[in-house]
Amino acid sequence: MNKVFAVEFWDEKACDVRSTGPHKGAKSSVMANKILAVDHYLESHRNAFEAQLLKLLRIPSVSAQPEHAADTRRAAEFVRDDLIAMGVPAELIEFKSGHPIVYGERLDAPGKPTLLVYGHYDVQPADKVRDGWRTEPFEPVVEHGNVYARGATDDKGQMLTHLKAAEAWLKTAGKLPVNVKFLIEGEEEVGGANLEAFVAANTAKLACDYAVISDTSQFAPGMPAICYGLKGLAYFELRVRGANRDLHSGTYGGAVQNPLNALCSILNSIKGPDGRVRIAGFYDKVKDLEAWERAEFAKLPFSEGEFATELGGDVLAGEQGYTTLERKGGRPTFDIHGLWGGYSGPGPKTVLPCQAGAKFSFRLVPDQDHKEIGRLVRQHIEANCPPGVSWELDEMHGAPAVLVTVKGSPGVDAAVQAITTSFGTPPLFIREGGSIPVVGLIKSHLKVDTLLLGWGQNDDNLHGPNEKFSLADFHRGIRASAHLLAELGKD
Amino acid sequence: MNKVFAVEFWDEKACDVRSTGPHKGAKSSVMANKILAVDHYLESHRNAFEAQLLKLLRIPSVSAQPEHAADTRRAAEFVRDDLIAMGVPAELIEFKSGHPIVYGERLDAPGKPTLLVYGHYDVQPADKVRDGWRTEPFEPVVEHGNVYARGATDDKGQMLTHLKAAEAWLKTAGKLPVNVKFLIEGEEEVGGANLEAFVAANTAKLACDYAVISDTSQFAPGMPAICYGLKGLAYFELRVRGANRDLHSGTYGGAVQNPLNALCSILNSIKGPDGRVRIAGFYDKVKDLEAWERAEFAKLPFSEGEFATELGGDVLAGEQGYTTLERKGGRPTFDIHGLWGGYSGPGPKTVLPCQAGAKFSFRLVPDQDHKEIGRLVRQHIEANCPPGVSWELDEMHGAPAVLVTVKGSPGVDAAVQAITTSFGTPPLFIREGGSIPVVGLIKSHLKVDTLLLGWGQNDDNLHGPNEKFSLADFHRGIRASAHLLAELGKD
Repeated sequence: MNKVFAVEFWDEKACDVRSTGPHKGAKSSVMANKILAVDHYLESHRNAFEAQLLKLLRIPSVSAQPEHAADTRRAAEFVRDDLIAMGVPAELIEFKSGHPIVYGERLDAPGKPTLLVYGHYDVQPADKVRDGWRTEPFEPVVEHGNVYARGATDDKGQMLTHLKAAEAWLKTAGKLPVNVKFLIEGEEEVGGANLEAFVAANTAKLACDYAVISDTSQFAPGMPAICYGLKGLAYFELRVRGANRDLHSGTYGGAVQNPLNALCSILNSIKGPDGRVRIAGFYDKVKDLEAWERAEFAKLPFSEGEFATELGGDVLAGEQGYTTLERKGGRPTFDIHGLWGGYSGPGPKTVLPCQAGAKFSFRLVPDQDHKEIGRLVRQHIEANCPPGVSWELDEMHGAPAVLVTVKGSPGVDAAVQAITTSFGTPPLFIREGGSIPVVGLIKSHLKVDTLLLGWGQNDDNLHGPNEKFSLADFHRGIRASAHLLAELGKD
Repeated sequence: MNKVFAVEFWDEKACDVRSTGPHKGAKSSVMANKILAVDHYLESHRNAFEAQLLKLLRIPSVSAQPEHAADTRRAAEFVRDDLIAMGVPAELIEFKSGHPIVYGERLDAPGKPTLLVYGHYDVQPADKVRDGWRTEPFEPVVEHGNVYARGATDDKGQMLTHLKAAEAWLKTAGKLPVNVKFLIEGEEEVGGANLEAFVAANTAKLACDYAVISDTSQFAPGMPAICYGLKGLAYFELRVRGANRDLHSGTYGGAVQNPLNALCSILNSIKGPDGRVRIAGFYDKVKDLEAWERAEFAKLPFSEGEFATELGGDVLAGEQGYTTLERKGGRPTFDIHGLWGGYSGPGPKTVLPCQAGAKFSFRLVPDQDHKEIGRLVRQHIEANCPPGVSWELDEMHGAPAVLVTVKGSPGVDAAVQAITTSFGTPPLFIREGGSIPVVGLIKSHLKVDTLLLGWGQNDDNLHGPNEKFSLADFHRGIRASAHLLAELGKD
């Protein structure tokens, strides 16, 4: 959405620190002084904050890889210790398996709203050589105002903005202007089940008025955004097996089913050349884009040509009948994430492999249900698997799509004011293709909306090589978070 | 084919060492004594031959893998040194790149036929963990009368039979009964170009009456076979590229073409659910199986049920309208040998990868031409590649299919007699699905047929894990090769 749309939901007067009146004026003046002190603290601690970010980025907290279990724990301890150091009592919540949750709270603003800050300290896997990084993923490098490292934007850098904002308040005013609960997990990238179990079992402890998450992107550099829609996710691993051993393709080829051929056949059957998923029932629950949404998508400052050029040229393709932005933000998708099987070393090898596998996922939109999609996928493979092989399907990760209420939300109004102050321009309202399962989880268990305040950029390359985060946006994000606390704490 | 068919082409009298007549009888008697001495030598050197085989199998001469270049050379030196030790002058023929050819000759039987022994000392890649071997591929283990190791049957074990046969003659009679040239290469498994260049440039040096190669299988245990038909091969590597970097499947999914999806689409377009290749023109040059061949295929002692059971169950599938044996031996095929791209580690990773690749090949039958198939494959991909990606195709390996003349060939008659003596039963005549490019190369440059005398078994798992070779067949093969020299050397 464009600026006009954004301003529509933003009551300037309600947030104006310069509004007058004898009583309000006095209070406002106190608040204004506190904010000045906070801003001063932020300005004078830029180097310290950056040093801390780099330190956290050096911890390879890859939650998916067992060999990084100890590293992942170190990242949790880093976050816990930082909270304690700034004056927020915090602890590690341990589980039978998986990675701990960092939980901390400061509830010293009775009568004021309560904000739940969610973030995650775990990161996606990264390998310099295999994935083609220019630098080591866990040896952060600062260049051209960006920090390059795995987790820079997703989510260590963005998560840290809320910690540093709280620190500024605690170190200047001695307390926070609202009640704040920190919930920082370590299984976001693997869809671990511990978080949902913890939230479900602790709804009173976690009760809040709003959640805030910074794990999304701005619309473009200089165009901060509030994300009001996220896609859901249904992620699968498929393994196909044929003969009881690898065979010679000369001796057995043509007579024995090849699991690699079968895998390609199954995967190709899932999406047609028109970009539409061919699984029966897949679109039944899809909420079509509304006319106003399509109109807003069309108004966004976006050049398909520039978008393609930035990605390397002629690389766009998708569902017929929709624009690139609509496909990205508002339509369900199917992507293969990994293929394996047989020989991939140098030279030829005429093997007829006995097994093959793939990871793939669907991004879902309201009101698709990831569990139902799992059933439909299973039925589809059953009907489309070639003869001569068996298959196994693991449902690895699922999350519902989310649409946040924007109109008439004081929390959204506060966020708009905080962002406007810190970034110098009001935020756009956008829908994103990514999935943040916790947003649906917070909605269903705690019954509150989440403010998705993205400080990242679309080309930050989260999940890819050379992930980065703008240090200017890092500091703007910290300031916006600090001002959000002020806005929410105003009478 | 069955025994009746085999006997049809075998003139017992021409090969009978007991035939009478004053002059011939004396000669025959001398020859018979020499053969007795050879047989005695073979019997008393079984342990020594096995020890040598194990020593050669311990050399990981994987020609495809640069890290094994030195090992591959060691295997060449092993073969050269063995030839020299038995009295065959031999040398390494070096090339600008790639692996040397071992060449040796003993031409001390003027007026007698010349036999060219071809074999290869290089082997397919093998990795215990990745490929699921029970034992280390390059630490041979003898169990139940078999030796288990990479290269046991393909081709170190089979190749060595011809060296040990020559050794027996040289150590007993002091010379060979025919002229023999040894051409043992090290690039068979990678389709190296050095061999063809060498043969083309040395047709006088390599001139011969027959070539003999043991790099195929018996029809079944106790059923030795002469292979008269081999498939050709056209082997490719396809690489598909999309955006200029890996992307997040949430942020970009649905808008940017996914190279893994595109790769599956291309590969799946190559073969239909009926098992027929869908590349335009692919079948144009295919010589249909003749009625007598289909009748012979049908007569072979073969149980489809037992074949499937031995492979693990319901794994058979292929071109409609043909039996399993016809598909294996007489019809062209399409198999994918390797798939790669994206993430295949533990857990989910929502990456939209920027590249993917596959290795695949077609087995060809007469009169398909691998170069023409390469052109057709290129046209097919051009027409079937989804939008948004680019692709590159490497033609890695090509070989024509071969049909050897059986009827009226004295060389085939000699081989039948030698095998009958050594295995106790006459050989079957079969067509195989494998490709031995050198057979076509020998035919085109040296104008002679190749005797394909396979000592292996179909379940030897060449190119797969736990490759094996029967030691009983190893010794029978040595004896058959020694007797072949005698049969060819008879007046």
